[in-house]
Amino acid sequence: MDAKRTEISTLGEFGLIRHLTEKFPRRNTSTLHGVGDDAAVIRYDGDRCTLVTTDLLLEGIHFDLQYTPLKHLGYKSCVVNFSDIYAMNGTPRQITVSLGVSRRFSVEDLDELYAGIRLACETYGVDLVGGDTSASMTGLCISITCMGEAQADQIVYRNGAQVNDLVCVSGNLGAAYLGLQLLEREKRVLNGQEGLEPDFAGKEYLLQRQLKPEARRDIIELLRQHDVKPTSMMDVSDGLSSEMMHICSQSGVGCRIYEDKIPIDYQSAVMAEEMNLNIVTCALNGGEDYELLFTCSINDYDKLVLMDRVYIIGHITKPETGLMLVGRQGEEIPLRAQGWNSLE
Amino acid sequence: MDAKRTEISTLGEFGLIRHLTEKFPRRNTSTLHGVGDDAAVIRYDGDRCTLVTTDLLLEGIHFDLQYTPLKHLGYKSCVVNFSDIYAMNGTPRQITVSLGVSRRFSVEDLDELYAGIRLACETYGVDLVGGDTSASMTGLCISITCMGEAQADQIVYRNGAQVNDLVCVSGNLGAAYLGLQLLEREKRVLNGQEGLEPDFAGKEYLLQRQLKPEARRDIIELLRQHDVKPTSMMDVSDGLSSEMMHICSQSGVGCRIYEDKIPIDYQSAVMAEEMNLNIVTCALNGGEDYELLFTCSINDYDKLVLMDRVYIIGHITKPETGLMLVGRQGEEIPLRAQGWNSLE
Repeated sequence: MDAKRTEISTLGEFGLIRHLTEKFPRRNTSTLHGVGDDAAVIRYDGDRCTLVTTDLLLEGIHFDLQYTPLKHLGYKSCVVNFSDIYAMNGTPRQITVSLGVSRRFSVEDLDELYAGIRLACETYGVDLVGGDTSASMTGLCISITCMGEAQADQIVYRNGAQVNDLVCVSGNLGAAYLGLQLLEREKRVLNGQEGLEPDFAGKEYLLQRQLKPEARRDIIELLRQHDVKPTSMMDVSDGLSSEMMHICSQSGVGCRIYEDKIPIDYQSAVMAEEMNLNIVTCALNGGEDYELLFTCSINDYDKLVLMDRVYIIGHITKPETGLMLVGRQGEEIPLRAQGWNSLE
Repeated sequence: MDAKRTEISTLGEFGLIRHLTEKFPRRNTSTLHGVGDDAAVIRYDGDRCTLVTTDLLLEGIHFDLQYTPLKHLGYKSCVVNFSDIYAMNGTPRQITVSLGVSRRFSVEDLDELYAGIRLACETYGVDLVGGDTSASMTGLCISITCMGEAQADQIVYRNGAQVNDLVCVSGNLGAAYLGLQLLEREKRVLNGQEGLEPDFAGKEYLLQRQLKPEARRDIIELLRQHDVKPTSMMDVSDGLSSEMMHICSQSGVGCRIYEDKIPIDYQSAVMAEEMNLNIVTCALNGGEDYELLFTCSINDYDKLVLMDRVYIIGHITKPETGLMLVGRQGEEIPLRAQGWNSLE
């Protein structure tokens, strides 16, 4: 066979998705918004829309059961989907859970996983409505789809950022990435040495951010209470740089992000120092923080500045000025997407 | 560790699903129907409901790429989901497609897979609205979720069969299973012997039923045209026996299925003979036929008997008389679920 073979890594995740999905026309008027945002938007009739998002998690790629308790894994698998629905300014309502499980797993293991799923559903008021369960040749495979609800005119897309809008984030960045580095380091140190218990004292917050993240429902409620509707929004799953590039390219704008405004937790800073990592790079490219990144009209400044859970980290500019990180000395460095990508 | 370990095989697929999902309460009024039917039913406002179904397909468990062309696999992965939506008397509208792909696969391979997905979407008028794409450690993993639309009062569940209802099926059974046996046999024969081409002459129909099944949209339209609303319905994915047991247990009824009424294709009969298999067993337990199995009021008999694509194969009885196959000599044999189950 002499057929052409193009490696998937040459396209990367977003390139691959674009390549595979660009040839699909839209056939149904009920499809308000398809591929390219945190969730798809479907409306049959009435004012209320169904939001749909889905995530596939594979053992050895997205999680390592050597340091991820199954209950935490179940919880996190749900929360990352809820986060996508909040990022559209919607409310998660239902999930389906599909599992592929190898013979390594017992009923008790799945009970642990489902205890985490149940806790997430309870915490966020979501119903489990279906799924599929099957054997797998190797390891654990989890596919979760989440349906959410939103008023059509309240949905926030990635493409609405306007020049002069404020860029805001709902919490500190980089901690989840540093938590992962910590777990990987302890795994290397302890591998094969039974009886040793890893020492995570003083680093609990980093582990929590990696193993048991929360979706920022509270921020959505806070903004609603104050009658602030973001002009664009997404959640930080791949990293701040990568997400800013999505918002700016879809909105046709540029941005300035101020290095000294990016919120960083004390434990993150200490850990980065200890590991000889640049903390700003961790915050920009770490990913898995599941904070909300959003833009708001400058008219909302007075309200936003009083919200202690919202950090204003920059502003939107004309597209021709590019996407820049402004350093502590005022120097401008182009933002680059170096987020985690399993396909590169 | 002395923790209890229960093998998943002791519960089987349906037992496992029940075990894992029974502790989930329903929290949202929008959740009209959850786990336990072909699709979940969600209604936010208005008359129109969103139906949701999902399937997880894993290489080595659900498909064998040695004899499954990727384009066919893409097509079939979609169609099995559409079939679940039709089985609720709904119309499929949107899908999300999540993929896990190992390095073995090239962009050209995924183009083939997506050509099949695109063809299915075109044939059935469905939009691709999202998904997730990731690397995998081994093989190909496909998770598809389908959203459909239905009027609340037109949805047909599994639990509505009434005593004296007619049991109907939309086409012949067992051919998909025999197609799979044929492919497996040719794989064994040809393994390692390059240059030999398998001889499938006269058996094309069996291969088509296995590799490129269709969902019975035409039957849903036919019944609607004639103003026949089934009292219960599901699609035949695991096998007629297994599906009848779902309908009867959820409806609280029994049934009689007449052996000589079960539609069987000529190629299936020849193939079963050749392979020394009992053709009725193949029809009862083969699975993957994706025909619609439904019950209708006896009042619809005059309409149904004129539909040449609908076969009346039995009737619903009181629960205490059990679920019976009635043989050619009038003997009664209890129906048993021996459908394909990856977890047993």
